[in-house]
Amino acid sequence: MNNFEFSCPTKIIFGIDTIKKIRDEISHDKKILITYGGGSIRKNGVLKQVKEALEGFNYSEFGGIEPNPKFETLMEAVKVVKEGSYDFLLAVGGGSVLDGTKFIAAASKFEGDPWDILIKGAPVNDAVELASVMTLPATGSEMNCGAVISRLSTKEKFAFMSEKVYPKFSVIDPQTTYSLPEKQTVNGIVDTYTHVMEQYATYDVNTPLQDQWALGIIKTLIEEGPKVLREPQNYDARANIFWCATCGLNYWISLGAVQDWSTHMIGHELTALYGLDHGETLTIILPSLWRTMKKDKMEKLAKMAIEVFGANEFLPKSLLADITIKKTEKFFNKLGRKTRLKEYGINPKEAAAEIKKRFSQRNTVLGERGNITADVAYEIVANA
Amino acid sequence: MNNFEFSCPTKIIFGIDTIKKIRDEISHDKKILITYGGGSIRKNGVLKQVKEALEGFNYSEFGGIEPNPKFETLMEAVKVVKEGSYDFLLAVGGGSVLDGTKFIAAASKFEGDPWDILIKGAPVNDAVELASVMTLPATGSEMNCGAVISRLSTKEKFAFMSEKVYPKFSVIDPQTTYSLPEKQTVNGIVDTYTHVMEQYATYDVNTPLQDQWALGIIKTLIEEGPKVLREPQNYDARANIFWCATCGLNYWISLGAVQDWSTHMIGHELTALYGLDHGETLTIILPSLWRTMKKDKMEKLAKMAIEVFGANEFLPKSLLADITIKKTEKFFNKLGRKTRLKEYGINPKEAAAEIKKRFSQRNTVLGERGNITADVAYEIVANA
Repeated sequence: MNNFEFSCPTKIIFGIDTIKKIRDEISHDKKILITYGGGSIRKNGVLKQVKEALEGFNYSEFGGIEPNPKFETLMEAVKVVKEGSYDFLLAVGGGSVLDGTKFIAAASKFEGDPWDILIKGAPVNDAVELASVMTLPATGSEMNCGAVISRLSTKEKFAFMSEKVYPKFSVIDPQTTYSLPEKQTVNGIVDTYTHVMEQYATYDVNTPLQDQWALGIIKTLIEEGPKVLREPQNYDARANIFWCATCGLNYWISLGAVQDWSTHMIGHELTALYGLDHGETLTIILPSLWRTMKKDKMEKLAKMAIEVFGANEFLPKSLLADITIKKTEKFFNKLGRKTRLKEYGINPKEAAAEIKKRFSQRNTVLGERGNITADVAYEIVANA
Repeated sequence: MNNFEFSCPTKIIFGIDTIKKIRDEISHDKKILITYGGGSIRKNGVLKQVKEALEGFNYSEFGGIEPNPKFETLMEAVKVVKEGSYDFLLAVGGGSVLDGTKFIAAASKFEGDPWDILIKGAPVNDAVELASVMTLPATGSEMNCGAVISRLSTKEKFAFMSEKVYPKFSVIDPQTTYSLPEKQTVNGIVDTYTHVMEQYATYDVNTPLQDQWALGIIKTLIEEGPKVLREPQNYDARANIFWCATCGLNYWISLGAVQDWSTHMIGHELTALYGLDHGETLTIILPSLWRTMKKDKMEKLAKMAIEVFGANEFLPKSLLADITIKKTEKFFNKLGRKTRLKEYGINPKEAAAEIKKRFSQRNTVLGERGNITADVAYEIVANA
């Protein structure tokens, strides 16, 4: 096991009718900016619940944060925060809203050009206090300190991390997910599945407990995922999927283990180039990446075949790894998700060439062994 | 899944040669009292490492905190803290030292008789800041806010919990456990095993992920436990066992689930009455308690037989539960641990009668369904 350090200040408030509890978690002297996206929280009554909970508090609203939140939009919010001297941001919505809000929180206190936070990894020394009411199980953003931001003008997508942007609290009421469109529910499940795999399917540094936990999330997704599609108002299934999403990226499963994240990095390029949903890019890239990098990931993929898919432990490892790749694709298909680029009307070789160019320009090298070069990325995308 | 709230401020610093990092975690203006037990940390060099890390800091020492820490001893430390105006407690040792230090931290700021914290559950509104260098994988105390304290004069053992006594940080260097006597290593493994079972083997409220995680700890203990006994200096095995112990009681596996803790409560009486190690009491009580309460715990014990012990899922549930009980006893035996009261020279019926008397006097009712009355406790102990 590798050395690690871990702490997470976020308070999770999970369960039925928990939105009202936000009033006990925010100091009355705060000037609050509620941030949200396209308005689904108006339709499903979540915004109303938030406002009722904040009765008597000093708050305003900033709506219109897009899926794959745009730098340009967020900088408008930064202006609002600065001019209005807001000192508490409450993100209400999914991962995009919360990721965007994390960036707003950091950029509002940043000296210099906030784009440097994304492009140069400039350190975030301070941020406006923030919290969330999370309505989409997917990114795990509610209990981590990372965020992914896009830039419209350059079609680029970048991530940043800072301990300063951990939410002070995150409220999760699984009932808020009853009204999710099926596509978004599926996106959330495959996003979580891939998050877990980015942390699990690497090389082994003797972390059996972390492995068990990672595969425990996968088993639960496989069991509960189809259930929420069949029964969108099954509370326990919704709750289990949401808790899987949170635990899929709150770092608990990867402490002391080795991480990858190349599927996400390549997927981000597909989103930036073709506007595919983040979740769609993952189901396209993950199986192809595993095929290309099978030798490196053999041990863990073989272990997963035995533990999750009940494969015979005496089969050759290469075959076991194949089983995991195929079963994963089948699971994605079962959720109604396509796993090939051309099924989305995208020419794989063209996409591969474009991504190779971008990676070459930026000297991007990915993977837990740092061996996914621009050429390897080309192969992964071309075969996707 | 039940509603839950969770936050944990403790920073975990885990791995090889991490003790030196404590100097970056404590403010230089603090007046530190290092607390410890019987002196094993002198022999194995841990105290030396701590002192080297704190060179230039203002610190003193308070040693002599016993296993099953005594109220009487701890109150001496409270006097030292108050008279010396110490404002940081650094517990160096195992769970007893840290539990004792949590009580010292709370009692030093308590108005009134600190015994009320234990006997009346008096609220702890403030505590001296504390942290730990943990050298024994067992109690999980390093990442939770609970403590168990004994009173010599009345032979009683009580627990208290308060968010104020979360360690600010806990350093875990698994190398410090190389020199543990085998008995203590075994105590730690069975303690962790039982902690997990107190949180898992209850009734099902549809928490599949939490169940997977609980059983993931059990699988890891079964795999790595015998390994550390065979190879006491196997770093990864020691690290895995330690991380199991921490995660066995940092609440992660039981969020939204139902807990029991009756094995611990009955075990505490055996420690108070006969001076048995905490770990010894658990291996005696757990199997007997499961036999008596089998009907209530059937679902979870059956699931465990399938998931952990590879039993055939088509067997009757009652038989599957029996398999888990027997396999658990066998695991304890494999670690060299006796599971019967009379093997410790204690008359089961006498012990049962004494514990029944105590529970009757205090109106103690235990178990996740509140149906382990004094009479049921008699049966459990008499058959142990």
